[in-house]
Amino acid sequence: MSAGILSIGTELTRGELVNTNATWLADQLTSVGFTVESIETVADVRGHVVDSLRRLAARHRVVVITGGLGPTTDDLTAECAAEAAHTELVRHEPSVEAIRRRFVAIGREMTASNLKQADLPATADVLPNPVGTAPGFTLALGGARLFFTPGVPTEMKRMFEEQILPRIAQQAPSDTAQNHLLTFGQTESRVGELLGGVEEAFPGITLGYRAHFPQIEVKVFARGKSKAEAQTLADAAAAEVKHRLGDIVFGESRDDSFGAAVGRALRAKGLSLAVAESCTGGLVGHLLTVVPGSSDYLLLDAVTYANAAKTAVLGVDPELIRGHGAVSAECAQAMAEGVRRLVDADIGLSITGIAGPTGGSDHKPVGLVYLGIATRSGPSVVKERKLSGDRGRIQTMAAYLSLKLALDFARSTGETSGREG
Amino acid sequence: MSAGILSIGTELTRGELVNTNATWLADQLTSVGFTVESIETVADVRGHVVDSLRRLAARHRVVVITGGLGPTTDDLTAECAAEAAHTELVRHEPSVEAIRRRFVAIGREMTASNLKQADLPATADVLPNPVGTAPGFTLALGGARLFFTPGVPTEMKRMFEEQILPRIAQQAPSDTAQNHLLTFGQTESRVGELLGGVEEAFPGITLGYRAHFPQIEVKVFARGKSKAEAQTLADAAAAEVKHRLGDIVFGESRDDSFGAAVGRALRAKGLSLAVAESCTGGLVGHLLTVVPGSSDYLLLDAVTYANAAKTAVLGVDPELIRGHGAVSAECAQAMAEGVRRLVDADIGLSITGIAGPTGGSDHKPVGLVYLGIATRSGPSVVKERKLSGDRGRIQTMAAYLSLKLALDFARSTGETSGREG
Repeated sequence: MSAGILSIGTELTRGELVNTNATWLADQLTSVGFTVESIETVADVRGHVVDSLRRLAARHRVVVITGGLGPTTDDLTAECAAEAAHTELVRHEPSVEAIRRRFVAIGREMTASNLKQADLPATADVLPNPVGTAPGFTLALGGARLFFTPGVPTEMKRMFEEQILPRIAQQAPSDTAQNHLLTFGQTESRVGELLGGVEEAFPGITLGYRAHFPQIEVKVFARGKSKAEAQTLADAAAAEVKHRLGDIVFGESRDDSFGAAVGRALRAKGLSLAVAESCTGGLVGHLLTVVPGSSDYLLLDAVTYANAAKTAVLGVDPELIRGHGAVSAECAQAMAEGVRRLVDADIGLSITGIAGPTGGSDHKPVGLVYLGIATRSGPSVVKERKLSGDRGRIQTMAAYLSLKLALDFARSTGETSGREG
Repeated sequence: MSAGILSIGTELTRGELVNTNATWLADQLTSVGFTVESIETVADVRGHVVDSLRRLAARHRVVVITGGLGPTTDDLTAECAAEAAHTELVRHEPSVEAIRRRFVAIGREMTASNLKQADLPATADVLPNPVGTAPGFTLALGGARLFFTPGVPTEMKRMFEEQILPRIAQQAPSDTAQNHLLTFGQTESRVGELLGGVEEAFPGITLGYRAHFPQIEVKVFARGKSKAEAQTLADAAAAEVKHRLGDIVFGESRDDSFGAAVGRALRAKGLSLAVAESCTGGLVGHLLTVVPGSSDYLLLDAVTYANAAKTAVLGVDPELIRGHGAVSAECAQAMAEGVRRLVDADIGLSITGIAGPTGGSDHKPVGLVYLGIATRSGPSVVKERKLSGDRGRIQTMAAYLSLKLALDFARSTGETSGREG
């Protein structure tokens, strides 16, 4: 079943805004079994909009259109829809009321231009907007069903999920399913090699890869005789994928994050964490604390950029820094042990290195990082890594590698918190 | 002068990848004076690609096409270009050589499928690829000039800047200019109000706004009789915009960042900074340390999530926390003073609050934050703010507001570093 997407707005054709709406819609439509064959973006120009609407309606069974429903004169979508459908605009009184109520709710004055948002094509059915002033609408054109929503992502997503998806779900083939596995620790090409032969072993399965540096997402797409059969097949293939990839898999939902996975592992074992960062500049803490409730296990993240801070906060011996340098295995070990002891955490992590672009030398090049982990029992461990890429990539990779140390420790240990209570 | 953009790839129509290439190209083409009227994305399906190429060529003077030039069988762009132009593919021997050399350079084996990348439409001129294996090409179709590049962003951008831009620049009207101002501290609607009448006062000027929470970018677009006239006009209007917006303007280049602006202000006055974060979880440090060289002024960022860490690291009195709570003006003040003193910094910043979604109460709701600043001379200052939005927005806004305190202090102070050396 073929679907098209049309995004309307000069801010998009001027390159002022990345079109994340279209990607989100394409993903949603693909997920429920549609084949999205084309995505178009046009400026707020009447001729182009009408032209695109007619062409997309002639080609697809479902078309989702976003944008151009605002109150200003350059918002032309409703007019263009009426023209494409050879009908005219009429004022939709219930929508006038809804807009009026919305303005009362947010305590602002409704202007005459807002009434324009209630002028909809005569043949359209209204799609109420629960989170904004502009109503959406749907109409038939050619062999297609067209759905119009505002371009504001939160409004568009809510209306798509609540009103559009239920209407098109019966048109979508109900014989597909998708599982997602999130990984960290191997390149995309290595992940592909590890999964060689899976598609052949599971007829009806397609594997997809999506790289979000430094994560690789594996998408397991299944087609069967029914939704249930497809889901069974997707589950079986996903189990095989997980088995082959081993401990690089950290999540099984697209909304998951590496910081959340580390947090779950810590929480499961009742472990607390303290971090001493240098070249990652707070990124480890940030990855952990975007997760609600992370204060339960993250006691402290000390970003000790200056050597004086490493000494004053973490108790790193100035002699050690003078002898080995701040970027050294010895310093990483002292940082991990110092931060752990400072707040009596179960695990202490440390990162010290050269993120670049300056500060490197022949002896200690840009990309050199030391990653330390200290625990209550057992010796501290420091790993040396030579990372490549720009400053952002080096910082990101170092932060992930540090968190991976904590994740692996939490997964493998029987140890639970040594603190009382 | 009208331009179109076509992105080819099933990973795009399936929603697996956000189409940042199209946005980048649209911005580039707009910047040099083209009007981008439409952007299309099609799957790797021969009929659709040929159809889109012909339609875009009929409509525009310049069309940039990305993607589908890889070595695998689903890469159809060269074939489709040949079909659209009623010609055939011929092997381009210099490109065979270039591909061979590239494989030698990266130390990998060239496969037969890579040779396919040298099969180009007979009427095409080659655009060499300095950073990848797939050459691009250009050909005339209808009244348009078509440019084909690989979909890999680094390859596409390099080829566009070095080879495509010089060829189309003479076609673009050379009578436009753009200035950019980055702001933080006011809503988009308030920025719009402050700039009311600027377009009327400067005929030929168009103002555009782009919100990147919590920043608002103001784009000053000028059209004149010549490039020089347009630039003069843009500069004059930008000066007026800057004057009206006052100290909410922090940068005058799109590549600038708030963290970099704060860093420049600190460096200009020779000031050092220490930060104590709680609910922002390392975000302040991260915003500062994405900037190379930030270790020159950021001495320490202590993310003291746990109360014990506030005491152990910053020396906050446990009695104070028991009496007023960790989310209090008193605690913010003690944190700012403690972190400043700990590493003898010129400025100490602190952030403590409730980022949510849990942890709020009637007395201290989600979104309540205290922002402290301590300096060598003068009393510490703590601001209370009630922020709204989800966890990410509250954290981001709190981090920016904290950095703004440091920025305003650095801008206004005559004080330079109190440290020796």
